Amino acid sequence: VSVLPAADAAHPAPFGALDAFFRPRAIAVIGASPQTLTIGHRIVENLLAYRFPGPIYPVHPTAESVCGLAAVPSLGAIAGPVDLAHVIVKNTRVLEQLEACAAKGVAAVIVNSSGFRETGPEGEDLERLLAQRARELGVRVFGPNCQGVISTEAACPLYSNFTFARVRPGAVSIVAQGGGVGEVINSELQERGVGLRMYASNGNACDVSVPEILAYFGADDGTRVIALHIESIPDPRALLEAAGAAAKRKPILALKSGTTREGARAVASHTGGLLEEDATTDLVLDAAGVVRVGTIRELCDAAQALAVQPAARGRRLAVLTNAGSPAICATDEAVRRGLCLPEPSGAATEALRSVLFATASLHNPVDMMATAGAREYGAAVRTLLADPGFDALLVAFITPFFVDCEAVAREIAAACAGAGIPVVANVMASPEKPAVKRILEAAGIPVYEYPEAAARAAAALVRAGELAARAEPAPVELPGVDARRGRAAIAACLARGGGLLAPEEAAALASAYGIPIPAWAAAATPEEACTAADRIGYPVVLKGAAAGLVHKTEEEAVFLDLRDRSNVFAAAADLLDRFSGRAPSLVVQQQAASGTELLVGASAVPGVGHAVAFGLGGIFVEAANDVVFRLAPLSSASASEMLSTIRGAGVLDAARSRPGVDRAALVDLLLRVSRLVGDLPEVRELDLNPVIAHPEGAPTLAVDVRVRIEALR
Amino acid sequence: VSVLPAADAAHPAPFGALDAFFRPRAIAVIGASPQTLTIGHRIVENLLAYRFPGPIYPVHPTAESVCGLAAVPSLGAIAGPVDLAHVIVKNTRVLEQLEACAAKGVAAVIVNSSGFRETGPEGEDLERLLAQRARELGVRVFGPNCQGVISTEAACPLYSNFTFARVRPGAVSIVAQGGGVGEVINSELQERGVGLRMYASNGNACDVSVPEILAYFGADDGTRVIALHIESIPDPRALLEAAGAAAKRKPILALKSGTTREGARAVASHTGGLLEEDATTDLVLDAAGVVRVGTIRELCDAAQALAVQPAARGRRLAVLTNAGSPAICATDEAVRRGLCLPEPSGAATEALRSVLFATASLHNPVDMMATAGAREYGAAVRTLLADPGFDALLVAFITPFFVDCEAVAREIAAACAGAGIPVVANVMASPEKPAVKRILEAAGIPVYEYPEAAARAAAALVRAGELAARAEPAPVELPGVDARRGRAAIAACLARGGGLLAPEEAAALASAYGIPIPAWAAAATPEEACTAADRIGYPVVLKGAAAGLVHKTEEEAVFLDLRDRSNVFAAAADLLDRFSGRAPSLVVQQQAASGTELLVGASAVPGVGHAVAFGLGGIFVEAANDVVFRLAPLSSASASEMLSTIRGAGVLDAARSRPGVDRAALVDLLLRVSRLVGDLPEVRELDLNPVIAHPEGAPTLAVDVRVRIEALR
Repeated sequence: VSVLPAADAAHPAPFGALDAFFRPRAIAVIGASPQTLTIGHRIVENLLAYRFPGPIYPVHPTAESVCGLAAVPSLGAIAGPVDLAHVIVKNTRVLEQLEACAAKGVAAVIVNSSGFRETGPEGEDLERLLAQRARELGVRVFGPNCQGVISTEAACPLYSNFTFARVRPGAVSIVAQGGGVGEVINSELQERGVGLRMYASNGNACDVSVPEILAYFGADDGTRVIALHIESIPDPRALLEAAGAAAKRKPILALKSGTTREGARAVASHTGGLLEEDATTDLVLDAAGVVRVGTIRELCDAAQALAVQPAARGRRLAVLTNAGSPAICATDEAVRRGLCLPEPSGAATEALRSVLFATASLHNPVDMMATAGAREYGAAVRTLLADPGFDALLVAFITPFFVDCEAVAREIAAACAGAGIPVVANVMASPEKPAVKRILEAAGIPVYEYPEAAARAAAALVRAGELAARAEPAPVELPGVDARRGRAAIAACLARGGGLLAPEEAAALASAYGIPIPAWAAAATPEEACTAADRIGYPVVLKGAAAGLVHKTEEEAVFLDLRDRSNVFAAAADLLDRFSGRAPSLVVQQQAASGTELLVGASAVPGVGHAVAFGLGGIFVEAANDVVFRLAPLSSASASEMLSTIRGAGVLDAARSRPGVDRAALVDLLLRVSRLVGDLPEVRELDLNPVIAHPEGAPTLAVDVRVRIEALR
Repeated sequence: VSVLPAADAAHPAPFGALDAFFRPRAIAVIGASPQTLTIGHRIVENLLAYRFPGPIYPVHPTAESVCGLAAVPSLGAIAGPVDLAHVIVKNTRVLEQLEACAAKGVAAVIVNSSGFRETGPEGEDLERLLAQRARELGVRVFGPNCQGVISTEAACPLYSNFTFARVRPGAVSIVAQGGGVGEVINSELQERGVGLRMYASNGNACDVSVPEILAYFGADDGTRVIALHIESIPDPRALLEAAGAAAKRKPILALKSGTTREGARAVASHTGGLLEEDATTDLVLDAAGVVRVGTIRELCDAAQALAVQPAARGRRLAVLTNAGSPAICATDEAVRRGLCLPEPSGAATEALRSVLFATASLHNPVDMMATAGAREYGAAVRTLLADPGFDALLVAFITPFFVDCEAVAREIAAACAGAGIPVVANVMASPEKPAVKRILEAAGIPVYEYPEAAARAAAALVRAGELAARAEPAPVELPGVDARRGRAAIAACLARGGGLLAPEEAAALASAYGIPIPAWAAAATPEEACTAADRIGYPVVLKGAAAGLVHKTEEEAVFLDLRDRSNVFAAAADLLDRFSGRAPSLVVQQQAASGTELLVGASAVPGVGHAVAFGLGGIFVEAANDVVFRLAPLSSASASEMLSTIRGAGVLDAARSRPGVDRAALVDLLLRVSRLVGDLPEVRELDLNPVIAHPEGAPTLAVDVRVRIEALR
């Protein structure tokens, strides 16, 4: 997807994707207005105020001029080339302006006008027409019903937007589905002095999409951090790919709104989109390596830190303070966010002891007491930064009246210069001390007023580091996988139009992927069941299958712990009798030794692939509802992480009289399931429940294998 | 606990508890210093700057004057009476100044000096001496190692503190264990224009305690909201009583730090206190009816709202906006905090339709679109406030350049005047529009920059309302409870020095409190076991007891589902054999029909009473770790709430082929346990696990009753 260069010999530089939007050489504003307080006036005003360097052409049927620029009655009246046009006319007249743009050779059009999908079926039709015609004409459309773009690039400062933030250049680029949220983020970052690189809010996004903009910001060297706000994900695969590629180059912070049912309903009503599953968003953003935040403020706090500090290489945070209680608030928050606070090394402790007052606490958080001055701060910061046991430093400073606070700030700034690990600061300054904050910020140290906000920012630096360190997953070795046999196992089911695999098909599929299941055999009569049980060895489980039988336990179609022939015979006879007329059949299965009951599964996620599931299984599924999902394909690392992520992860560990389970076997099983659904996209759902896990040495068995197949459309 | 009035005929007004600290008539500053940038100078400076109306006596051995006030060489040299003295001398000289204060008749002493418990064992001894001598002398001590107090009361403005916040009068009183945190809260509230009523940070709190200060602020009519920061709770019962009484009169917001293990360790190191269980704090604050917050910012956000708005009567929030996306962020946050967003009533919807633009969304959040002006805002606010379906209103306003934003603010303010329900605002104003915020705040509407912060503030108003509405619990009717029989059941155990109740004792105790257990009998031989089983009816459970046997399941001392005499005989013989030499005994018990396995229990909380527990039971206990606790005595309402509060609350409801369990029986069981531990404080732990719950009509049975008794000291 790329924008064709405007046919203009004077601009020979090759135009990249979306360059016509963010680096246009000339702009027309169709619907420019001489009347103040209108969007058509404001955009011209903004372009002028922010000194767009190329020609700006206000297009108005009758006006002589707009904001002092000579107006033209139509695009056709413009002599020179035009890369970008704003369209601010009645919704029903947008299409004819699109045609005019194409005729003029305009590559990019921002449709600010509303009255499209967000207003109902008629608007939806209009929007569909607009998108279709744009494709036909080879014109890219941004919007409709949108704010527009901003860029602070020195070569092409551009405020092609009707908002009113006072922007100054920075390293954060913002792409926001919600214009209001985008504006709040932008204003807030400006107020904090963080600055902006580029801004895009593309409203209904009928053509140029959020993933395209992400890719563009990802490739832009001036963008150090991307702040993303999304409300709905029309194309999760595209988002996954674009965000995944961009996140390899720089951190992406994402706020998804509509995460509650009520919020999602409001999104649907607000954007005219569909009610969406938040689960897909979670999977996609996690798989793409995006740092997820929960609120606008958290997004801003994290962007502020990532704009100036490197990501952290690990989770070990040092906290240095001159006041105990706020540092404890920071400690609580850091730990809640998954960081740890190890003690300073022996050498560091000695160094601290030699320089700090006797009453100082040399544990982490290191509390130097209120009387600590520039000398103490400088020495302690240097000591902690040099301790290889830490991955990040949080410096807290409450400004006492009896300390030379500016000297402290200067000394902290000097001590942090060239630090190998990221630093954040929590300054709780009396109003008399605004300089403290200024000194630190000038040195590239992000300053937060609240200790918990500083801790959260540190956590964002840690998370960004973890995501950046996600290596290209090593190719997973899975001996015994036979994709051809796997495909064969589902062929008959596909041929009959899909549905649940029969027991022998499910077993064949498991076998093709090396998924261990207990010995089993099909049987049609009580006698056959007994013969099978003799062969398998007691105790056995007998399961009935029958037409319409789904909940086997509730319908008493499963007999556990059958210890001899007579029990098997009686149970088989009972099953065949009770389900007679429903085409009953029997499966005899080796009874797995009792162990830890888990669930491993996978389900198709429309447009994205499959999610692999891991959690507490058997009877725990419902009561504990403790299952985590990750997008396939899994790496060994992500499979391991799934094991640790469930709330009840403790059941996998050794405890009391019980040894821990064989984790490697579980990781292997997850990887096999991941491979299976990767090879066989027709698998709609796969449930291994329970998987009975045992300590190393004993087999980890999938006791029940349920697979639903659906032909791809 | 009260402060004796200073013996001064000129001040006949009766002095209440702590009045000598917050409303002194004359103050001495022992350790006042002519040297700037010292605490002894700063306190005199502050008292003067904030115009303390009574005499201020700097005490200094040699100085002529401090801050222009004539200094005296000792307390004895002061002619008039003194109510309050600051002591700012070396730690080892504090005691002699305390004696001098007593000799002078000073009722209240603020010891700002540090060098006490926070520094180690020597300081601890010094502090113990100080507290003891203060008691003997009848002098109240605030601190040591503390900031002091502030009051903005018009009759007695008092800045008896060395901090540097610029305070203006307000309705929020702050009591902070952590001086740093207290200062951040105070500064932040000042910056937001919320103002302060009284402030207290009492450091090591060797005498005047946080509960006493809470009680004082609770009784102070000028205090509308109390903001509390605590790090450790030396006397949970006192906190429970003081906070409980104050919370009946006004909302208390509490931030507890040290909630993580790392944070608690830092608190212990910072305050010289003990490492504490956060669980006790949770129980006490919940039982006291305190609104719990998680961060300093949340505390400030909530205090800002409660200072000017009434608490909400319910959880139904209306959201009104002119921009969709931020309102969705507010909606998500409100829902995450337990609020709901019902649709406007039919009448309200019609009223909104008649006044708003056709493109407006009339669902909740009501989105009027960016073009909404004063007329639309006014009409919509009035409509939503008049809709009886709402308990609170969140007005969001992003200030478009084409709207008269001040007119909107004025209209919102007018529409909210006399509103019956609380209102919070989220104003995302361009820098050009600071007046919008001012207009709303002048009308008593708290304004937040971020939508999520406004939603959280609304949630705090809702929580405050819920806590205020907690009626005095009606006396609980529990037929069949016989406290005398209960005490008799534990008498033998107490006589033998406590420990686990024997099965027959536990059964007798359960019976005395009407706790239903399955039929059972003790047996000493296999024959007796068979006879008992015949009488009880099959199937039965056989349990062995033996010396040192704790984990019955792991040691295979429990046989389930014994269906006939021969099985019982064999199992009994096996048990007696395996545990021979460990004084084995047998219990035969009716096997309860399978049902939902739950846990009900209670455990002693030192200094407070007992916590009652409810959660998933049986094998779920460990895997799901899903248990909630409430302080006894429970009301029916709080017992019901416990049922709904566990994560796995769904297991109690009807699902698929399974009907829901008998909730009334579970509530009754919780109330009986609550009564039991209330009557018998010697019960240290009580575990009913599993309790097997069934649908209404079938009994809810405590299958295993484990009770540990400990004599009270």
